[in-house]
Amino acid sequence: MQENIERLEEMIGYRFKRKHLIEEALTHPSCDNGISYERLEFLGDLILDAIVGITLFKKNPSASESFLTDLKSAYVNRKYLQKIGEDIKLHKCIQYRGYEVPHLDNFIEGIIGAIYLDSGWKSAETFVKRFILNKKIEPMQNYKNLLSSIARKEFKTEPVYQVISEKGPPHKKIYTVKVKIHGKRYVGTGKAGNKKDAEMSAAEELLRKLGLK
Amino acid sequence: MQENIERLEEMIGYRFKRKHLIEEALTHPSCDNGISYERLEFLGDLILDAIVGITLFKKNPSASESFLTDLKSAYVNRKYLQKIGEDIKLHKCIQYRGYEVPHLDNFIEGIIGAIYLDSGWKSAETFVKRFILNKKIEPMQNYKNLLSSIARKEFKTEPVYQVISEKGPPHKKIYTVKVKIHGKRYVGTGKAGNKKDAEMSAAEELLRKLGLK
Repeated sequence: MQENIERLEEMIGYRFKRKHLIEEALTHPSCDNGISYERLEFLGDLILDAIVGITLFKKNPSASESFLTDLKSAYVNRKYLQKIGEDIKLHKCIQYRGYEVPHLDNFIEGIIGAIYLDSGWKSAETFVKRFILNKKIEPMQNYKNLLSSIARKEFKTEPVYQVISEKGPPHKKIYTVKVKIHGKRYVGTGKAGNKKDAEMSAAEELLRKLGLK
Repeated sequence: MQENIERLEEMIGYRFKRKHLIEEALTHPSCDNGISYERLEFLGDLILDAIVGITLFKKNPSASESFLTDLKSAYVNRKYLQKIGEDIKLHKCIQYRGYEVPHLDNFIEGIIGAIYLDSGWKSAETFVKRFILNKKIEPMQNYKNLLSSIARKEFKTEPVYQVISEKGPPHKKIYTVKVKIHGKRYVGTGKAGNKKDAEMSAAEELLRKLGLK
């Protein structure tokens, strides 16, 4: 673990005063050794949301609330955070059991929680600005909302989502969701590590099949 | 407006340096006069989540992440914030058009955003601790998760949610959602100002009908 911690500290340019915090943040629940990133992930998720939201709010003084919501989603969504995890080679620093590398997005949130507890808001903000807010990206299209409003306007109904399957161990679940619009023959299917993302990608597929995307 | 602002300041024990901020926070979009609480609500929502989450995290050093999530939900959910709005008689301080008093929860979030911009995190925290975290409440039962896990275990399937209707003007929408479990004759129905809460209450009703709550 010692080595993993040093590798990470070098990668992110931050040295932890309290090593037990980063040890926790780098430990996947599958290790089953009494510590795991889960509580830190809870904390880091909220802190990340707030830092990203506050920064975007200040940077975009005339943007609407819905633009800010979509842009914030783009910076905090699981896929984007997973990519950040890959960029900083997080898979080389984490502890887990099993053959497959776990999702890295949860670790990113855990690390943010650990930095916050170790030395406060400013340090967490520095990390978020350096690794997450450093890229210019497009607001995330909310395909569920888009599909809903089209279904309402064009077909006078609402899309129906159903979770078809939920596979894998607790910390590496894959949800498969399908979405239909009553009276239309097309079905959109989406897979992801959480229901919301699976629904979003199912909605995106259905929009594409309907020729609306 | 001047009078409304003074009434609110007295009620919450906070005097704004920049009055335009609180004016914005107290203005419903229905006024259509170029300002509204929407951007401040975006900001306040994130700040509220973070303050509540951080406080609960520190107060409950051995609580699991799922307990913290449910307890946080109890403090930031729309119904609870609506109640806080009623307690501080917010309806006497806001500006809106139309006959019906708008949801107060959005204003609470807007006020938190305004306090944060006016004088920083500490002041927002003081407000949240004094008016929102001051009551001891029970963690919110996540009926959707509960129904899902029962449906999976007992019936080898997943519940299906459908929005049946979405009524009212943009800022006072009422969603009606129904939920079914394939092969079971009961249907749960729920109504709320947003989809998630409507689904939650539909799930709760179905659990009750199935004799599981």
